[in-house]
Amino acid sequence: MNKEEILLLIMDGNIEISKLKILLSDMNTVDIAEILEYLEKDKFIQMFRVLPKTIASDVFANMDSEHQQSVVEALADTEIGEIINKLFVDDAVDFIEEMPANVVGRVLANVQSEKRKLINQFLQYPDNSAGSIMTAEYISLNENEAVQDAFDTIRKIGQNKETINTCYVIKNDRVLVGEVSARTLMLSNLHDRICDIMNKYPVFSHTTDDREIIADQFKKYDLLAMPVVDKEQRLVGIITVDDIMDVIVQEDTEDMEKMGALKPSDDPYMKSGIFQLAKNRFLWLLVLMLSATITAAIIEGFEESLALMPILVAFIPMLMDTGGNSGCQSSTLIIRGMALGDIRLRDFLRVFWKEIRVALLCGLALAAVNFGRIYIMNGKNILLAVTVSLALVCTVLVAKSAGALLPMLAKRIGIDPAMMAAPVITTIADAASLIMYFTFARLILGL
Amino acid sequence: MNKEEILLLIMDGNIEISKLKILLSDMNTVDIAEILEYLEKDKFIQMFRVLPKTIASDVFANMDSEHQQSVVEALADTEIGEIINKLFVDDAVDFIEEMPANVVGRVLANVQSEKRKLINQFLQYPDNSAGSIMTAEYISLNENEAVQDAFDTIRKIGQNKETINTCYVIKNDRVLVGEVSARTLMLSNLHDRICDIMNKYPVFSHTTDDREIIADQFKKYDLLAMPVVDKEQRLVGIITVDDIMDVIVQEDTEDMEKMGALKPSDDPYMKSGIFQLAKNRFLWLLVLMLSATITAAIIEGFEESLALMPILVAFIPMLMDTGGNSGCQSSTLIIRGMALGDIRLRDFLRVFWKEIRVALLCGLALAAVNFGRIYIMNGKNILLAVTVSLALVCTVLVAKSAGALLPMLAKRIGIDPAMMAAPVITTIADAASLIMYFTFARLILGL
Repeated sequence: MNKEEILLLIMDGNIEISKLKILLSDMNTVDIAEILEYLEKDKFIQMFRVLPKTIASDVFANMDSEHQQSVVEALADTEIGEIINKLFVDDAVDFIEEMPANVVGRVLANVQSEKRKLINQFLQYPDNSAGSIMTAEYISLNENEAVQDAFDTIRKIGQNKETINTCYVIKNDRVLVGEVSARTLMLSNLHDRICDIMNKYPVFSHTTDDREIIADQFKKYDLLAMPVVDKEQRLVGIITVDDIMDVIVQEDTEDMEKMGALKPSDDPYMKSGIFQLAKNRFLWLLVLMLSATITAAIIEGFEESLALMPILVAFIPMLMDTGGNSGCQSSTLIIRGMALGDIRLRDFLRVFWKEIRVALLCGLALAAVNFGRIYIMNGKNILLAVTVSLALVCTVLVAKSAGALLPMLAKRIGIDPAMMAAPVITTIADAASLIMYFTFARLILGL
Repeated sequence: MNKEEILLLIMDGNIEISKLKILLSDMNTVDIAEILEYLEKDKFIQMFRVLPKTIASDVFANMDSEHQQSVVEALADTEIGEIINKLFVDDAVDFIEEMPANVVGRVLANVQSEKRKLINQFLQYPDNSAGSIMTAEYISLNENEAVQDAFDTIRKIGQNKETINTCYVIKNDRVLVGEVSARTLMLSNLHDRICDIMNKYPVFSHTTDDREIIADQFKKYDLLAMPVVDKEQRLVGIITVDDIMDVIVQEDTEDMEKMGALKPSDDPYMKSGIFQLAKNRFLWLLVLMLSATITAAIIEGFEESLALMPILVAFIPMLMDTGGNSGCQSSTLIIRGMALGDIRLRDFLRVFWKEIRVALLCGLALAAVNFGRIYIMNGKNILLAVTVSLALVCTVLVAKSAGALLPMLAKRIGIDPAMMAAPVITTIADAASLIMYFTFARLILGL
């Protein structure tokens, strides 16, 4: 039976609870959470209570924060404690960070004291740090124990760990000394010692490391999990690849938003209010609008030329748009290239030289088309066609240079390159292209 | 000893081969590949030959295709066979796809016939399909065997499998009937039967499924690996999460490139020639430049008004830029929201209504600032200030509506929404804003 059919059965109330329990126990908890979220509130709470105790926490971890809050508000204190105690620390922290203060207080009051201590510790790690995405449910082994002991440990506590695919080897003071995979354990002799079969140089991170750099390491080394240590090299948690996929998606979304002249936001569009959306957009629009004062001043400075030859105005939008689009192409490639590590700051000159040649190729080809068009459509006015085409080549050249260099310059001085994307480049290219256009008009057309 | 130190030792030739072998055997093969790639060609080949046989294939898989080609050209036929036979099929296919025909022929001629058959089969799967990113090295178990047998299987063949963390359960005809994790195996009783402990409803895909949809499933269900079946539900391969991370990065890059008016390309910027770069940019620039003919025509149509009041020209760039940026903000949010599944086509009306209200908020706030600026800087000309400000509000409204609706419309008719990003929206917003601007000017300023 698929998700839709089960959802319909529940909505119609056409199913016995005992039968439903059997159906749900075969399902993925992600799907169960999805089904529950479709229900109306009363029905939703009622169904959540029906869930087998073994999967209730898992389902809870997969719901959005609004539904999590509904659950917590509807359940009794002891029931809340049961659910939260079974959550992995990272899921518990994610949940608590979204809750209002009174809910947080009630939740923490009903959690086992050891778990509460961990949650409070994990809540302290700065946003975007390794600490903020790690969890505490890992398997740690002693370097001197035998493989057989490791199997016994896994058998005893493996059920409640986020992963058993990699186990972490520590010395008595909890200092990380290695890692050993489930594969290695299975392929080893039962009385091999862990320190003889472990990987002594695992890729690890510190609690304060930036999550973006950690994501790069996961990609580079094809990791499934990474141990996190404190300043004294003591193991405090692990990061798993599922959370890293979320990091990659979030970081890319952030970059796209910055490149689109938006203040980045973690909230999904459909759940954001219009005031919040407007706030995330207004500042950039204002800055860019005010910087367009420069172009207005340039045009006013050339008012006499325009009065003598009004047709010149007609080509302003084409020049501006082509400049904007050319710059946007370059900045997109450079910003993304730097984010992926394909382009490094020391490539500065090579990038610049590349962009100049590409700009000349594109600019000359566009100018040729443009020359023909103006010549045919504007009464065979060769001088006008030359003026506009020359301005076009120069515009593409300036826009592409700015599009390549500004993001690299930004990175050099420690600003996010994604801020130097299309909108900023367009504003710069506009001013430059208008000045060149009018200057050529004066020189060539004698205005 | 870290990577840089080892690299220096090799470059100086200051290290005995036997010592180097010991150093390298402790290192991650990704790092070894990185070190080798820094060396000059002769030294590089010499060092590659030094690598212990056990890791040479792994190092080979982690090198870029230029260096892979150098290796293959330098080695003898039997040596090539040894390396390729040990590669996972997905790595072998990735490598072969980048090689010129003569190299491919030589490689395939030296591979074991079974492997050759698999490689040829995998090469047939269409780009971007599940088949193109899967590999054949998985562990399959029989549903009737016991856990002890599974351990024996893993012990026997687990060394050469891409993952043993999840094993796949098949019936005699290779039809997929379930999956079982290493964790479940370890926590089960040795004489439990596989069919009693397996997950009977694994998330799986077909060879022709789109890799983007598969990536969504990995994210949704936090998967580490996914089985791939053919039309008859027979297991043919598995996809692992490390390849899915690459898919996510590539798909995001592609979206950004499309949004930046670029033809998407898999080749890194630094390795692309200028003609290729220019080719990927020219077509969009040409289309957008030619569509600016419309704005030129609009301006020519209002030439008389402009002649009566030349100052009107000065505000054209500001209106165009603000329209472009407003539209860019909306299209960025909507395109990314749809890519992440946060915004669905059935949300069309809600999105439209949201954008209109956000546009009014932003537009009115911008217009207020703009009104003040013009009033102060342009001789307290209230009518001019009203005209420009009114045009500004309407421009933001049109740009944001187009920025929200066009990507959704594109998706509806089966075009990639990312094509309907800033550049296209800008062109549309430009035309609309100029028409409104000049119409208001005629009505309000009586031109």
